[in-house]
Amino acid sequence: RCHQRSKAMLDVPFPPFCAFLGSLGLLCVALVSAWCQHWRGGFSLDGGSRTFNWHPVLMVTGLVVLYGAAALVYRVPNTWSGPKLPWKLLHGGLALGAFVLTVLGLAAVFRFHNANGTPNMYSLHSWMGLGTVLLFSCQWAAGFGAFLLPWAPSWLRQIYKPIHVFFGSTILMLSVASCVSGINEKLFFSLKNGTTQYKLLPAEAVFANTLGILILLFGVLVVGALARPSWKRPDSGSLDSHQVL
Amino acid sequence: RCHQRSKAMLDVPFPPFCAFLGSLGLLCVALVSAWCQHWRGGFSLDGGSRTFNWHPVLMVTGLVVLYGAAALVYRVPNTWSGPKLPWKLLHGGLALGAFVLTVLGLAAVFRFHNANGTPNMYSLHSWMGLGTVLLFSCQWAAGFGAFLLPWAPSWLRQIYKPIHVFFGSTILMLSVASCVSGINEKLFFSLKNGTTQYKLLPAEAVFANTLGILILLFGVLVVGALARPSWKRPDSGSLDSHQVL
Repeated sequence: RCHQRSKAMLDVPFPPFCAFLGSLGLLCVALVSAWCQHWRGGFSLDGGSRTFNWHPVLMVTGLVVLYGAAALVYRVPNTWSGPKLPWKLLHGGLALGAFVLTVLGLAAVFRFHNANGTPNMYSLHSWMGLGTVLLFSCQWAAGFGAFLLPWAPSWLRQIYKPIHVFFGSTILMLSVASCVSGINEKLFFSLKNGTTQYKLLPAEAVFANTLGILILLFGVLVVGALARPSWKRPDSGSLDSHQVL
Repeated sequence: RCHQRSKAMLDVPFPPFCAFLGSLGLLCVALVSAWCQHWRGGFSLDGGSRTFNWHPVLMVTGLVVLYGAAALVYRVPNTWSGPKLPWKLLHGGLALGAFVLTVLGLAAVFRFHNANGTPNMYSLHSWMGLGTVLLFSCQWAAGFGAFLLPWAPSWLRQIYKPIHVFFGSTILMLSVASCVSGINEKLFFSLKNGTTQYKLLPAEAVFANTLGILILLFGVLVVGALARPSWKRPDSGSLDSHQVL
């Protein structure tokens, strides 16, 4: 009896979990925007530090939250029956939106560096972040070619699908690790003087550290949801056979 | 035919993959040690920066490489038949070894901070890292209580097992993210002056950035190996029934 009850408690259905995850994602976007607006001076396109501020906001929104939403599309039970093409378009469309925000986020930091004579691509954060974005672009292009273009042979789709799924989770983990190292780095850059030193843990540091922990939580929950067997489409063997046009 | 050939190419057996992963793990340990020895002044227990140097070495060795080895024990096909207790002891023993190194790694950084009047636990790196270690300690204790102590009822083991597996991968992802943010942070601290500025990408920066990328690769490959269905024990339903003593 105890076993049954505990098992039932752990068997959260996907929709409420997804609603919680959506709220957590929106909270991350709200917090990163509030951080940049309230403590870092807001946003502009003039090449100064207010141009940089687009970078964290666009990366968290695109490469973490929207990317996570795209990744979870096939966990919604509605997608398991009926024509598959609309769901594929939604998955690819959300991922494309995430990619566009990501590229704008990169543009913001490159513009800021170039306008201030700072070299690009020297830190581990930048190496990891750009690597993540490059993987993401390959993932999107390969997914488009294999699953949306009608002429990909079904044996190719079958072989590529587990690879696409593996890189789907991997890219999200790398995104989250990039965000966290970026927030850490930005706080060391910004909180240097007097009473606002990072090591004195001023309000901004608590706020942005909390943001980092929530981004980690979001990433772990999405990757966990993707891996959970009972939330996967029951019959994933029959994929793609009658999608075309 | 093309399908069969590509499929066969992707079907790497576990042992050679594991040998590659072991080499990669040892390479990470060697590189982090070489970084601290060659560029950061080596090791000591005097409370200075050479005491700090134990921190990255012990964390990479314990919380990433040895932890990864512990996590992969049940992917070795030899563990799938015969008595399970020796493999459990190996899994728990490796994890305990990883935990001891981790605690020593924490002791190194706390000792360094305390000897120099630097506050502890202010950065996002420290929050994430300590959170990871706390999760790891819960994971070890709960695993010991549920799977090694003989009196845990089998329904509890059944319920707890997927949770233990989920946190196993999660803790490794968090460890890797902590390492990467730590290396990034340490490079910003250390490479500040003249020709050794981080932004000028001196040899040390290239070396340590490469180390960070290899740690990420190690983590991604371990988490991927853990998730790969064909490398899991074929009959994981019958677990634990005849382990006891």
